[in-house]
Amino acid sequence: MSKPGPVEARLRELGIELPASQRPLANYVPSVRVGKLLFVSGVGPMRDGKPIMTGVVGKDVSIEQAQECAKWCAVNLLCLARDAVGLERVVRVVKLTGFVNSAPGFGDQPKVINGASDFLVQVLGDRGKHARAAVGAHGLPMGIPVEIEAVFEVDEGPGGIH
Amino acid sequence: MSKPGPVEARLRELGIELPASQRPLANYVPSVRVGKLLFVSGVGPMRDGKPIMTGVVGKDVSIEQAQECAKWCAVNLLCLARDAVGLERVVRVVKLTGFVNSAPGFGDQPKVINGASDFLVQVLGDRGKHARAAVGAHGLPMGIPVEIEAVFEVDEGPGGIH
Amino acid sequence: MSKPGPVEARLRELGIELPASQRPLANYVPSVRVGKLLFVSGVGPMRDGKPIMTGVVGKDVSIEQAQECAKWCAVNLLCLARDAVGLERVVRVVKLTGFVNSAPGFGDQPKVINGASDFLVQVLGDRGKHARAAVGAHGLPMGIPVEIEAVFEVDEGPGGIH
Repeated sequence: MSKPGPVEARLRELGIELPASQRPLANYVPSVRVGKLLFVSGVGPMRDGKPIMTGVVGKDVSIEQAQECAKWCAVNLLCLARDAVGLERVVRVVKLTGFVNSAPGFGDQPKVINGASDFLVQVLGDRGKHARAAVGAHGLPMGIPVEIEAVFEVDEGPGGIH
Repeated sequence: MSKPGPVEARLRELGIELPASQRPLANYVPSVRVGKLLFVSGVGPMRDGKPIMTGVVGKDVSIEQAQECAKWCAVNLLCLARDAVGLERVVRVVKLTGFVNSAPGFGDQPKVINGASDFLVQVLGDRGKHARAAVGAHGLPMGIPVEIEAVFEVDEGPGGIH
Repeated sequence: MSKPGPVEARLRELGIELPASQRPLANYVPSVRVGKLLFVSGVGPMRDGKPIMTGVVGKDVSIEQAQECAKWCAVNLLCLARDAVGLERVVRVVKLTGFVNSAPGFGDQPKVINGASDFLVQVLGDRGKHARAAVGAHGLPMGIPVEIEAVFEVDEGPGGIH
């Protein structure tokens, strides 16, 4: 068994074990890499194969609950990056786009997506700091409260990634 | 007249003829390339210059109808890639972001966007497999049911693209 | 004091003075660069630290007012590009994604985002022409009518950007 890298060790300290990745439910793939950029599909707050919560934020789901959802989106984004290139080759989280399933008049999308941003910085330090947009969606897959997609910068390595 | 490439031949087998591209209605351009990445503007289910359908999915528009819309979005994305670099230089569809004009409580955005994903894989094979996000919008241009934007990887060729 | 570059001179002709940048209110950064691509966070129509307007477009906010909001989003995107690399190193605006806080049935998102697109072309000429998507959001941060995120192509310079 290979020694866990520093990112995995940090995750352990935080009590997070990265689960096996979800398989996409449709005709698409978890991520596509072009050079140094890894484009990662939108993910929800899935845990053990199902959403930890569903509902509309500001109505059925509180900000605190939605932040927990955003954190689990970030966990799943890390899973997909691990599967694509390995966590030690993640140079940086470049960009998150966070969609919050919002009740009419809800305007705290940034607070919600902080659940993901704070987690990524906790795990990755400065490499976790990213550009970001947070917007209100009108419905998300399966009624999840939050969906987040990402772009990562990854290390191609001397001979590229194989 | 030049011989059609394999992608165009495959489109013909599927009974699809790529139309002439839509011109953007505003002060923007259909696509912009930076190196290997081609960023393609959001497109609707336009055919012969007008949307094949308008309305809200889950209310006015069924999932099957919305899938057909998503397919026509994908046709139009291919048109824009053809115009920018030629279809034979499309190395891969990297990423789709699919916006579904959703009724309250609608959560089948992934099924809808499958209309585009399935079509791209039918036409391009493995090169058509992409990362993806599917979210619910609250209103789309002209009331179209689906809008999809894309990033393609393209072959710059030995001397770059001219 | 260094001489203003041509972009700053053009802004002056248009009567626009780029303000000091807003600091992100959360655990993210204004922009992240990977090679030639600068990914800029979603920005609102902030001026002097607060939104010039809040409300839903098609209900509380007219198209003309929303266009002014979109223009101020573009001003703020330019600020962030200036802070990251300097305006003279902006090779091109590659892509805008414009989110319009939309009333039910509102379908003029493209007209609204034209407020940003027209402004960028006015300031940057052909370098301001970009790919674009315009969609309806259901709620935006603090109730702003418009949020826009961007990708810019930037000049890395002979020794890269320092």
